[in-house]
Amino acid sequence: MENKKPLILITNDDGYQAKGLKKLVSLMRPLGEVVVISTEKVMSAKGHSITTTPDLTVRLVESGPDYKEYICNGTPVDCVKVGYQWLLERFPDLVVSGINHGSNASINVIYSGTMAAAIEACMDGINAIGFSLDCYDLDADFDHLDGYITAITKKVLREGLPDGICLNVNFPARSEEPFKGLRVCRQAKAKWIEVYSECLDESGGTCLKLGGKFICEDEGEDTDYYALKHNFVSLVPTHFDLTATQYMDDMQRFEHVLELES
Amino acid sequence: MENKKPLILITNDDGYQAKGLKKLVSLMRPLGEVVVISTEKVMSAKGHSITTTPDLTVRLVESGPDYKEYICNGTPVDCVKVGYQWLLERFPDLVVSGINHGSNASINVIYSGTMAAAIEACMDGINAIGFSLDCYDLDADFDHLDGYITAITKKVLREGLPDGICLNVNFPARSEEPFKGLRVCRQAKAKWIEVYSECLDESGGTCLKLGGKFICEDEGEDTDYYALKHNFVSLVPTHFDLTATQYMDDMQRFEHVLELES
Repeated sequence: MENKKPLILITNDDGYQAKGLKKLVSLMRPLGEVVVISTEKVMSAKGHSITTTPDLTVRLVESGPDYKEYICNGTPVDCVKVGYQWLLERFPDLVVSGINHGSNASINVIYSGTMAAAIEACMDGINAIGFSLDCYDLDADFDHLDGYITAITKKVLREGLPDGICLNVNFPARSEEPFKGLRVCRQAKAKWIEVYSECLDESGGTCLKLGGKFICEDEGEDTDYYALKHNFVSLVPTHFDLTATQYMDDMQRFEHVLELES
Repeated sequence: MENKKPLILITNDDGYQAKGLKKLVSLMRPLGEVVVISTEKVMSAKGHSITTTPDLTVRLVESGPDYKEYICNGTPVDCVKVGYQWLLERFPDLVVSGINHGSNASINVIYSGTMAAAIEACMDGINAIGFSLDCYDLDADFDHLDGYITAITKKVLREGLPDGICLNVNFPARSEEPFKGLRVCRQAKAKWIEVYSECLDESGGTCLKLGGKFICEDEGEDTDYYALKHNFVSLVPTHFDLTATQYMDDMQRFEHVLELES
């Protein structure tokens, strides 16, 4: 008999022990058949990196009714790929990634392993959502997210998402006030200013350590950055087309570049 | 006295010994003061991954008039960041990345370390170009690219690019016919179907090896995929805003998701 429950694949980039992952699993289990393929190590800021060398491993660590849990030594995108191209017998109805410890709003989406996993899934036509909390604390409080995560997930399972997009959902850290609501936003234009400092590596050699400062000069009130700052949940429809369509006409000036230069 | 030559930072994702890198260096040296920060190892498919652990190293391997060459053990994005946030005394006028051994057209841009380096630079307001050849051969012939690479680079140095975009330039592999010209394109919608196979890792354990098949069902004649297939050089203006703007209105249905579900 066919299993009528939706099949939900969960992954993350903070490692299999992360509190955010455990919270997400607890919220997804009532909604369907759940398969977790988490990262073995912390894979934050691994972007859309994939493992092309032959040393990817994935091992089953728990199995029960409507529930399986695997740990994969690769990146979040590896977890998603290996999930439905190797482990699962059918494509999942939904891929959820997170809950990330730290914001993936604004430019963070570019570096994010959590969001890369969701983007990978939507490239394959699978509904996908990345959830992130604007707090890096390993012991962050995620309980105030329950209602929204369940409601958004149920809605996506029921109605689906347009082909080729996934959702980048970010939550403000816990405060004394409840969330003001949910806002559909665009990705804020921001950047990180890196600060490198010299330090010693494990073998006593000199190496560089990355630090950074987040700079957002985008003052738009329609951005995810603005929403989070004002205690709204932000939702950005996210795709994988990097074409800067608005500059296609301007770029025509390159079409005869050879003749112009010679 | 101020150095009036433009400062050009070169990086890549195929390692410091790559033939494509050496070709790019030879084409850039007549155009300005050149600093190369290449990857130590092959860093293909590392996307926008960055090194957040304190073990990044960068070492000077050659120094001469208007020329310096470093090797960095990190990703292409690390190379760019460490270049102008640590090594260089001023921001470069241009970052060029490549020439990649393999196409970065279509969905490949998402996985590409070469293009991630260019995108990182344009996030910081620096003119940037990624050059790639649609041929994975380590000994590929790059000589038919010379005219275009020089002409495009000179034009960018002279005129600049709009804020927040970089160029994703892809070349067809050498054939008997010369290129038909250059086309400004959008990124084709395509994907990879992964094929995993079991193999033994170095210690004799079982692991997975990634293979794949590229599928392009996008039949648009305005895509980079189409251009390359028809022997045109493709140029895609590329940005870092992943917002699927066309679905912002549709997503409004999530704004009252809590009330709707309860």
